[in-house]
Amino acid sequence: MPRDYLACPACGAQVRSYRNPFPTVDIIIEMAEGIVLIERKNEPFGWALPGGFVDYGEPLEHAAAREAREETSLEITSLRLVGCYSDPARDSRMHTISTVYAAKGSGVPCAADDAAGLAVFPLTALPAMLCFDHEKILANYVMLKEKGLL
Amino acid sequence: MPRDYLACPACGAQVRSYRNPFPTVDIIIEMAEGIVLIERKNEPFGWALPGGFVDYGEPLEHAAAREAREETSLEITSLRLVGCYSDPARDSRMHTISTVYAAKGSGVPCAADDAAGLAVFPLTALPAMLCFDHEKILANYVMLKEKGLL
Repeated sequence: MPRDYLACPACGAQVRSYRNPFPTVDIIIEMAEGIVLIERKNEPFGWALPGGFVDYGEPLEHAAAREAREETSLEITSLRLVGCYSDPARDSRMHTISTVYAAKGSGVPCAADDAAGLAVFPLTALPAMLCFDHEKILANYVMLKEKGLL
Repeated sequence: MPRDYLACPACGAQVRSYRNPFPTVDIIIEMAEGIVLIERKNEPFGWALPGGFVDYGEPLEHAAAREAREETSLEITSLRLVGCYSDPARDSRMHTISTVYAAKGSGVPCAADDAAGLAVFPLTALPAMLCFDHEKILANYVMLKEKGLL
């Protein structure tokens, strides 16, 4: 298990901790008119897939449903694995490993939590600038759909 | 980001840390005669897929190649994603999220590192008792292969 050391803020002693990549989920929420993207409230700003950190003790699929609900107010069903994205440079803030699901969305999309805004985009008219590696993720998603694998 | 607090061993002060599930990889290494399983040197004892923790800064595919090499002395190519396994109860020691790859193995299999022993098993004659959720993982693998998806 990868070890790391933190400095105690009170006395400066080394405290043994563990350092591992941060598991995250991102969700491609499918609506009748297209897929849901959020406008991020925090840096990096721009359009992105809804998603976030996986809590300790939380299965990936639960994290996906929770993040979808928190950021878009939508419920998701029919989860399908799209892929795993783990390039250490995919997020400049820290090393994240994102597990990406496609899912059917139901309800009325409404931005909340980390999302400043939200819109449904047809796959043929996605915004030009997407945060992180979300352009690559969506290209993979489109390719898998075209092959009938999603 | 999930926060956690550790106690400083010198003064007892609380040190802020992060607690997130531990990313791991497991690899289904395909050889001409079947797939490679290792006999674990540490608890839980028994047969298991080769695998281990993903280091901070390490892409999943690199972790898979490193763990395959460390535990079986084999090189792997043609990595294909089998699935992600994140049930918090899958490992009684801690919450792990395993990304599982199938891959072609080359070289002479030889147990090392965490592996006390090693054997190549035909898919039709796997050992009855497998550690963790590796029986479920292998059942999914066989199902995906039968559907022509791997």
